[in-house]
Amino acid sequence: MTVRIAVAGASGYAGGELLRLLLGHPDVEIGALTAGGNAGTPLLAHQPHLLPLADRILGETTAENLAGHDVVFLALPHGHSAEIAARLGEDTLVIDCGADHRLTDEAAWTRWYGGAHAGSWPYGLPELPGQRDVLTTARRIAVPGCYPTVSSLALAPAIHLVEPEVTVVAVSGTSGAGKSLKPNLLGSEVMGSLSAYGVGGAHRHTPEITQNLSKVAGRDVKVSFTPVLAPLPRGILATCSATLTGDDDVRAVYEKAYADEPFVHLLPEGHWPTTGAVLGSNAVQLQVTVDPDLNRLVVVAAVDNLAKGTAGAAVQCMNLALGLPETTGLSTVGVAP
Amino acid sequence: MTVRIAVAGASGYAGGELLRLLLGHPDVEIGALTAGGNAGTPLLAHQPHLLPLADRILGETTAENLAGHDVVFLALPHGHSAEIAARLGEDTLVIDCGADHRLTDEAAWTRWYGGAHAGSWPYGLPELPGQRDVLTTARRIAVPGCYPTVSSLALAPAIHLVEPEVTVVAVSGTSGAGKSLKPNLLGSEVMGSLSAYGVGGAHRHTPEITQNLSKVAGRDVKVSFTPVLAPLPRGILATCSATLTGDDDVRAVYEKAYADEPFVHLLPEGHWPTTGAVLGSNAVQLQVTVDPDLNRLVVVAAVDNLAKGTAGAAVQCMNLALGLPETTGLSTVGVAP
Amino acid sequence: MTVRIAVAGASGYAGGELLRLLLGHPDVEIGALTAGGNAGTPLLAHQPHLLPLADRILGETTAENLAGHDVVFLALPHGHSAEIAARLGEDTLVIDCGADHRLTDEAAWTRWYGGAHAGSWPYGLPELPGQRDVLTTARRIAVPGCYPTVSSLALAPAIHLVEPEVTVVAVSGTSGAGKSLKPNLLGSEVMGSLSAYGVGGAHRHTPEITQNLSKVAGRDVKVSFTPVLAPLPRGILATCSATLTGDDDVRAVYEKAYADEPFVHLLPEGHWPTTGAVLGSNAVQLQVTVDPDLNRLVVVAAVDNLAKGTAGAAVQCMNLALGLPETTGLSTVGVAP
Amino acid sequence: MTVRIAVAGASGYAGGELLRLLLGHPDVEIGALTAGGNAGTPLLAHQPHLLPLADRILGETTAENLAGHDVVFLALPHGHSAEIAARLGEDTLVIDCGADHRLTDEAAWTRWYGGAHAGSWPYGLPELPGQRDVLTTARRIAVPGCYPTVSSLALAPAIHLVEPEVTVVAVSGTSGAGKSLKPNLLGSEVMGSLSAYGVGGAHRHTPEITQNLSKVAGRDVKVSFTPVLAPLPRGILATCSATLTGDDDVRAVYEKAYADEPFVHLLPEGHWPTTGAVLGSNAVQLQVTVDPDLNRLVVVAAVDNLAKGTAGAAVQCMNLALGLPETTGLSTVGVAP
Repeated sequence: MTVRIAVAGASGYAGGELLRLLLGHPDVEIGALTAGGNAGTPLLAHQPHLLPLADRILGETTAENLAGHDVVFLALPHGHSAEIAARLGEDTLVIDCGADHRLTDEAAWTRWYGGAHAGSWPYGLPELPGQRDVLTTARRIAVPGCYPTVSSLALAPAIHLVEPEVTVVAVSGTSGAGKSLKPNLLGSEVMGSLSAYGVGGAHRHTPEITQNLSKVAGRDVKVSFTPVLAPLPRGILATCSATLTGDDDVRAVYEKAYADEPFVHLLPEGHWPTTGAVLGSNAVQLQVTVDPDLNRLVVVAAVDNLAKGTAGAAVQCMNLALGLPETTGLSTVGVAP
Repeated sequence: MTVRIAVAGASGYAGGELLRLLLGHPDVEIGALTAGGNAGTPLLAHQPHLLPLADRILGETTAENLAGHDVVFLALPHGHSAEIAARLGEDTLVIDCGADHRLTDEAAWTRWYGGAHAGSWPYGLPELPGQRDVLTTARRIAVPGCYPTVSSLALAPAIHLVEPEVTVVAVSGTSGAGKSLKPNLLGSEVMGSLSAYGVGGAHRHTPEITQNLSKVAGRDVKVSFTPVLAPLPRGILATCSATLTGDDDVRAVYEKAYADEPFVHLLPEGHWPTTGAVLGSNAVQLQVTVDPDLNRLVVVAAVDNLAKGTAGAAVQCMNLALGLPETTGLSTVGVAP
Repeated sequence: MTVRIAVAGASGYAGGELLRLLLGHPDVEIGALTAGGNAGTPLLAHQPHLLPLADRILGETTAENLAGHDVVFLALPHGHSAEIAARLGEDTLVIDCGADHRLTDEAAWTRWYGGAHAGSWPYGLPELPGQRDVLTTARRIAVPGCYPTVSSLALAPAIHLVEPEVTVVAVSGTSGAGKSLKPNLLGSEVMGSLSAYGVGGAHRHTPEITQNLSKVAGRDVKVSFTPVLAPLPRGILATCSATLTGDDDVRAVYEKAYADEPFVHLLPEGHWPTTGAVLGSNAVQLQVTVDPDLNRLVVVAAVDNLAKGTAGAAVQCMNLALGLPETTGLSTVGVAP
Repeated sequence: MTVRIAVAGASGYAGGELLRLLLGHPDVEIGALTAGGNAGTPLLAHQPHLLPLADRILGETTAENLAGHDVVFLALPHGHSAEIAARLGEDTLVIDCGADHRLTDEAAWTRWYGGAHAGSWPYGLPELPGQRDVLTTARRIAVPGCYPTVSSLALAPAIHLVEPEVTVVAVSGTSGAGKSLKPNLLGSEVMGSLSAYGVGGAHRHTPEITQNLSKVAGRDVKVSFTPVLAPLPRGILATCSATLTGDDDVRAVYEKAYADEPFVHLLPEGHWPTTGAVLGSNAVQLQVTVDPDLNRLVVVAAVDNLAKGTAGAAVQCMNLALGLPETTGLSTVGVAP
């Protein structure tokens, strides 16, 4: 089987990572590549690492250009996916790397993003309880945000064992902010500096983490989420903690939860996750401990924000939805050092 | 007045930063420079940025070599300060950048460091309530650890307004680990990667933060502390949070607390601290907010771990103890970008 | 004596570095700060490291706003200095950090920059033979480009001992490119990558290096110049080489040339320059050797592009032109690590 | 066909990269992994990115442990390969990533490395004229050094068109120095700094570049080589130049030379190589130009020092020697940003 795919937003970081992964996928043929302002220019100008596609000229992101493919990946600014998706055939597998279809609660969408709520699609985090089955039959999939991916995987297995108020401080590389031409993202500003942003529940990934953990817990969970920007291109390291209500063997809980997951790895005791170890891979590395003085669960998780945090998850979801082996074209081997 | 100073541990990072600052201090004459294994080599081999001292040959770290100075700065591995200090005159101002004399509780010392407790010295964080006065008459001063400095300054003003359980996730540059030849501190390992260490209350700065906040609060405060290592040489960005017990105007509380402090700056609303802005300076930049969904105080603070986090604090304490203007030789201007 | 200064272009990197240095200059009072598009905003928004000036509101860069100061520093895009300078009093010391008045040859200006040639001003590199005297009476000074500074100082002492064709490959941090919002300057692009630009004599600093070396040599010197962009905010490391025509003791030549220079340091044999050692300082570190197989002189030089490479040189020139000690407000101590 | 391979030196950077690539090679089964001081420890402790091999315990690097494999990769400190290789069967394919068998001239070996010359093996740079054929029948292969690879590929096509004296300044990431515990390789020292080393013909890769270019040119070529260390883990960007003797269309020369090479890419005019674009890949990106003022050829080339610069070349050579398609298990797609 060869699947013909299109990527909308091919000049950005998510689009570039999708193409990097899809170039190594044995069952995929790469069709239309489209962009917004970069339409009409060759891919080489934006993705010099994708040599096999260097000469491809980017088309405009229109439903016409994206039609006629088995799978369409949308890597667009938020607010742009719904209209395009509505004009693609119902049997086309549409995988949205943007935020438009992640939140189920219209009020949450309005509060955090504003504008009309496009509705929600099946959520592309197969490692959440019951979610893999949902994805095997989906034809519309909302890929999770990078912070929600790592935070949800870090806390979901124990969310019923803790007080329903969790703290997440996640340090991220800069590619998560996209190729935006903002002064604070310039290399000169980023290198040698750390900064916080979206503090105090102001980051749009907060409601998504809340949604995931509340759904798994079966009750309202409150999330204190702070993202920190650090000088590296890729990678998120999340420190997640919550007060335990009992004295469960949390390590055993995590071992059981992820025993059969191909991409989520609980490290042996004494080893701690690093983002360098998962760079370019679809792996999530976890370690858990309990602070004895506070009886507080602390989980540290590392992920590549562009891979498992975005494009890798998208390919994983494509595999599931197409009935391919879930790991096809994906790796658990990072590029280090 | 010219003060004659000596630095023990002059080949390390704390020693180098002390010398950098002291070279710009108008009232200081730099005397003996000593080291352990590097004794007998020129300073240039270890501190190529200190050109005016390039030809100085490092002496052995002995009480004899350090005697005869007005001020002796100790920048030694923990466990080495007490013996040296005991052999220096009582009227010599001894400022210990190491951990030996920070903890007041012998049990805490034994649990976290092991070995004999050397006793505690006046704690060199003048911004804590009542602490400045203590330092003006001190002849032995324990400089705080870098994480305790930033965490304590971030939380002290509001510690009586929150539940006595706080969470600190502090991201640090690598110089905090010193010039240790460990594989995980190699540039190839550090760059492009984030890692956690000392998770779950396992870092030795935990009892020091706990001691500071409990003392200010007048009751036991529990601290969940996680340090994260990021790819930059200098800087700590700490995200500190705790659940508020009331609806106080926390911004006003912080404004009042630090109104007269020369080095602690609450940024205007809408501006967030970055470590790049305080690089090389003695400034601490703070911002505070309240997450409305959890009524949780979130404070973000940035500091240069080698400056205000270590050597700058040491010079500030020297100024206080010698009756010099507190800010002499110190700056609030960072080196950026 | 207190000198009242103004800075045009205060929101950029050169402007910020000027202010950082001038805040530590004992004889300076900081007057008007102006900008282009950023006029009307507080300095804090652009230079968060300059806390003592945080509340200053940037004015428009006009001759009116800059008038009435003893010294006006221009840190403007090229082509903007001449008109402003013409409207400032002849007794005002105007120091241009831009390129407008560096090239003496109109044809060179036209070829490399285009547009009208504004004429040339006394060239602000006092370490070149005879140049210090010129600057003591100047009221208009053209600060050298960063690459020409380091390359000229590296090669000038031996330029009469080599074939008149030199090779310079200079690796630079990103701040040399200014705060330009270009995709290739984004942190995500810069970190973890090296790139060349302006190769094959295409960089505008080529004619300036050529002008300097030819003037010192007293004959035409040809320069093969390649700049490389590396992932650090500040610093240039230049590798400069040329074939020796004889067997002179080049080390002795350099020792003699720079024996009395306060900022240029020939390192002892066996030590090689690093940019980290000069960060934030006005120092230039040099090392020289001869490749025996080619009888080729190789000089490696390190400089902070924003300090001695731009703003430090500007302050040094101001000191000279005002009759102040040349080193006032400047340091040879870097901020490391 | 499944090839059983062993890796000696599996805990180092070259060994780790070999394993990363071999894990993705469809025809390879990974056998013995050995080490020196790290023997007896699990691979996870040294290569946390190689999750599928995490539990493997490293054996001692002995001929016994390496025997019984079809291919043995040696990634050892120099001087250690010859003895091991002599004890492996003649039909075993032995691929040495170290320097021991690269130099054909015993005098050069003695001058640059010292000790007994182990003799030379077929040189593993198939893109050099005639070299691919040599490798298809080889059972002992010397993988080139990283700098010689990029420099030789940059200059070989035009080496008969230039004066026989070339200049190479190559900027490298830190992994080229290996996992050595040296102070100057610590993250704190490396980040934010540039340094030169092995200047003036003092680097051991100089004779190897000289050997390659002289062989291709058919006459003695002299090489001025300077390596520069920059703050990134991986990547070399080499700027190579030489004076043209005529007015040949050098672009056409390079186009022709590399038209059929799967891994060497001459970029379209106007695009310049970046190391980020080749990270993790076996690609070499080149651009050529002529400086009109000096009639000097300038070639800029980018390579991943661990991939095409070491381990990728080793796998490429293995493919050739085993009769596999040369590109099996290798990619021209980099991991960016």
